[in-house]
Order: sequence, then C-alpha cells, then structure tokens
Amino acid sequence: MLPSKVKIVEVGPRDGLQNESPVATQTKIRLINLLSDTGLTHIEAGSFVSPKWVPQMADSIEVMKAITRRNHVTYSALTPNLKGLEQALEADANQVAIFTSSSEGFCQHNINCSIADSLTRFEPVMRLATKHGIPVRGYLSCVADCPYDGPTAPKQVASVVKSLIDLGCYEVSLGDTIGTGTPNRIAAMLEAVMLVAPLPQLAVHFHDTWGQALTNIYQALSMGINTIDSSVAGLGGCPYAHGASGNVATEDVLYLCQGLGIETGIDLELLAKAGWMISEELGRQPTSKVSLALRNRVLSLS
Amino acid sequence: MLPSKVKIVEVGPRDGLQNESPVATQTKIRLINLLSDTGLTHIEAGSFVSPKWVPQMADSIEVMKAITRRNHVTYSALTPNLKGLEQALEADANQVAIFTSSSEGFCQHNINCSIADSLTRFEPVMRLATKHGIPVRGYLSCVADCPYDGPTAPKQVASVVKSLIDLGCYEVSLGDTIGTGTPNRIAAMLEAVMLVAPLPQLAVHFHDTWGQALTNIYQALSMGINTIDSSVAGLGGCPYAHGASGNVATEDVLYLCQGLGIETGIDLELLAKAGWMISEELGRQPTSKVSLALRNRVLSLS
Repeated sequence: MLPSKVKIVEVGPRDGLQNESPVATQTKIRLINLLSDTGLTHIEAGSFVSPKWVPQMADSIEVMKAITRRNHVTYSALTPNLKGLEQALEADANQVAIFTSSSEGFCQHNINCSIADSLTRFEPVMRLATKHGIPVRGYLSCVADCPYDGPTAPKQVASVVKSLIDLGCYEVSLGDTIGTGTPNRIAAMLEAVMLVAPLPQLAVHFHDTWGQALTNIYQALSMGINTIDSSVAGLGGCPYAHGASGNVATEDVLYLCQGLGIETGIDLELLAKAGWMISEELGRQPTSKVSLALRNRVLSLS
Repeated sequence: MLPSKVKIVEVGPRDGLQNESPVATQTKIRLINLLSDTGLTHIEAGSFVSPKWVPQMADSIEVMKAITRRNHVTYSALTPNLKGLEQALEADANQVAIFTSSSEGFCQHNINCSIADSLTRFEPVMRLATKHGIPVRGYLSCVADCPYDGPTAPKQVASVVKSLIDLGCYEVSLGDTIGTGTPNRIAAMLEAVMLVAPLPQLAVHFHDTWGQALTNIYQALSMGINTIDSSVAGLGGCPYAHGASGNVATEDVLYLCQGLGIETGIDLELLAKAGWMISEELGRQPTSKVSLALRNRVLSLS
C-alpha cells in the first residue's frame, strides 16, 4: 500500500526561514539555487504576507526574481490576499498557496477571522489566480490539535478540506501545526479526509515538536499519501503556535523513503549540503539526524 | 494488532552513560533513584565489563549497592563473563545480560571472537546465573546493518536469536546498533525472528542515529512487540560503532505509546525530570524532542 514514488514539497526557504533569525537576501537565493539542483520539483520560495507580521519574508520579491529557475522546478509562494497574489504574480511564482485552519481558535489567533470568513476572503484570490492559470494550494493547520481549542475532530478537518477543494485548491496540505499528533490519530484524520477528497489532492505537513513527524509520515505513506512537505535541515516552525518549532527535516524524510524503496528523485547528499550551508549561515546545527549522521561520515572520511 | 501495554527497559544508566562523559557515582545513584520512582519496572543499572574498555562503568558495584531499591523494579547489569557475573551477584543485580552480534564483523571488532565462540563463552555464565536463579537477557547487535559487513540477513539474525534462546536467555533484545534500519527492513527481520522465537521473548533496541528509531518502534509495536529498550533523555549510544550515538529517548517512546493508547505504567513528566537532571550534569540538552517540548511548556508556565 506504500506509494512507489512521492513528491516532496520543500518548504525550508519559506515556512522554515520565516521562523529563523533573518538571513541575507543573497543567502536565500543561494539556498534556493542549491535546492533547485537536488532533484526537488517543488520549492516554496517566498511569502507575500505583510512584512509587519513576517519581516523575515519582506524580500520575497527580490528573492524570487533573482533565483536561477530550473524548468523541472515549481516555485511557489504564500499569498494571504489579493495584494499578496499580485506581488506573487510580479515575482513570477509558478504556484501560490492560501492558508486557513481546521480549528476556530487558531484561525482567530492566526488570521484574525473565522474559518468561514477566511474561505470567503480567499475567493477573489482564487479568481485572479485562475485567470492567470496559477494553481493554488491550500494549507490547513491544526489537523490533530489546536493550541487554543484542544483536539480537532477528524470530521471538522474533512469539512474544511472539502471547502478548500470546492474553492478550487488543486491540493490541500494537512498540517499538524503543533506536532502533537500520533499515528493512530493521524490515521483517523486521514480516513475522514479521504472520504471527501481524492488521495492525489492531499499532502501532509508534519511538525516534529514532539518527535512524532516521521512516524506520522510513515503512517500517511502506508495509507497511500504521496505528497510530503518537509524543510531542509529542519528549518523553522510556526510563529503563531507557542513552542511549535521544527518542521520535519527533508533529509530524514528522504532517508525513510529511500529505505522503503519509494522514489523521490532527490539526491540526499546534495540536499544535505544545502542544509549545511544554511545551518552555517544561521549559526546552528541542522535538527536533522540524517544530516548530522551524513556530516559525521563525511568528516570521518576527510 | 498493537499491544495493550508495553514494558519499557530503561537503559540510560548503563547503555546511555557508558557513552557519555564520566559522571560522579552519586549522580548515577541519584539518576537511578529518580527513575525508580517513575513507574519503570526495569532499569539497567550497571555493567561489569573491564574498566579498561568502559571506564564510565567502573563504579557499577558501588552504584548498585547504594541505590534505593524499589520492589516493583528489576535492576539489571551487563555481564560479559564469569568474573562480571560474580561482581553482579555481589552487587545484588536482579537480572543480568550477555551480548553478542548477529554479524561476524561486529562480533570480531566488539568482543574479539566469532559469534559461535561468543555463545560458547556465555555457557558458564548462563550456568552460574541459573544456579542463582538470575534471569539472563541476551543483547543482539547489528540486526539491520553492520558497520563492517553491511546489511545483516534476517535469517542470520533469527539464527543467533535461536541460539541465545536455546542457551537459556529469557529474552532477546534486537539491536539496530548503527540506527540505519527503516521499517520495511525491521519488519522483514522481525518476521524471520518470530518464526524461531515466541513474541514475549523479544525486545527491540533501536538507535536514532539516522532518525528512524521511533518509526521502527511503531513498526515493531504494530507487529505485536511489547518490550522496548530506550534511554532517558536519549543518553548514549555504542562506543564500538563509529557515529552510532543516540539511543532512542524514553520520553519519545512514552509519548508515542500514550498517544497510541498503549499502557506503560510510567509517568512521563517524572521521567522527563530525571532526564533534565542528568542532562544538566552532563552539560548538554536532552536529545529527546518530547523532553524539550515539555521543558518549554514548563518554562512558559513558570
């Protein structure tokens, strides 16, 4: 029941870096260019939200204009509203993403409105994107637990997934934002979601705050999910959920997939090198165990 | 098919600390006493190997004599030979453990003989232990890969498991010593082993060097395995396998089991506190993400 191949959506340059100390525009460009040469087919390259809220992403337009585009890579950007989408179009994003929550509490705290209102707000974004032939991804947070409302009912997640697909999202990324889910609850959530959305339109986006991300990804893979969000070197987290640091590291996902015989098309060592570069710039270790193990091996050989 | 409850074998004070900077005898005693009050029923408290090879464990006899014993806890010790067993008896160990490898290369490098010879050497240990009514556990390393021989065939693992059980071991702990296994290979290994050994006599002992330990434990649990070795705060690794640092952290295993509705009988917060104490003594962070997440939560509340 495992898929034979998976698509990895690399979110490090956006979801990752927006939760790290600010890095220079040139460093971001260098990171994305390195990632573009690993075999990745999808890189989230920027975010057009207000720089007041996310100052780390204020240079997304320069970044996206300056990167060396590879034909096989889709470069996407987060766009909360029409203004953001217009900037993304100017930056020549190949794809954009909108985001809402499956819990009311997080939606209120994160985007300051109800789930229903958030969906309504996205309608003009969706219309303009469609007009320009730009596919829109939907991010859905708190699919397991909400820091304000507690556990999220699988039916509730499924209901918002359906709304996002009805709105026109070609894919919905299911986020365990605070990383508290365990595989049984992830399975129950996915079962509910699969009743309303076709498998190829679903992605998983798990945070490793409680160490469960890879196990949850294994659970999702075993249910046929074949799109996985991850972040090189384990960069970042979510600024609005307390303590929710730690996207699952792309290196760890690649190692798991390789071991399981699932094709990713990505060169693990090249990806790890990109991770070492950005970790050095940030002055910290990668959170990826695979990255550390590879680096120990490389150091011991040199 | 998940078990309703599991036994956690806490190996931090032995397998953990033998791979850390030396800590004071009093600190070890304090750690074991803290662990004894968490609900753990099995603590590996020391090792009677030559202090020439493992200086960190040279005080095991003092440690085991000074700890406050709890009736519900089994305190065990590693004993490679008769001399070690005699010391363990003097130290009043409730249980002892012998160890060999499922790969010839590691056996040669680690205990300087063939697998067959290692088993022969354990015969007198087993006889004396039996005479004293002391149960003997068998540790088996390299059940997925060997740093010298490459992948270990599942049949080979099963063959040595059978030998250990025939020798009289009441339980065999299956070690992924270098932490390279992924769940499909762990499953194949367990399937082969289950053909020769009853499920209640099997334990898993996974290292997290490549970030796969918890996922592999989930795989093992789903196959009915109900004894898991782990190390508080993720202490330690294996000194003989290059780069093989990182026992899976007990905190992460407990969180997974709690999430899955599997009873452990252990208080996660008390266990995490024991981990914070020893981590502070060692001057480093716990490697356990659950421990870090709990500490952030505690700090944010205080």
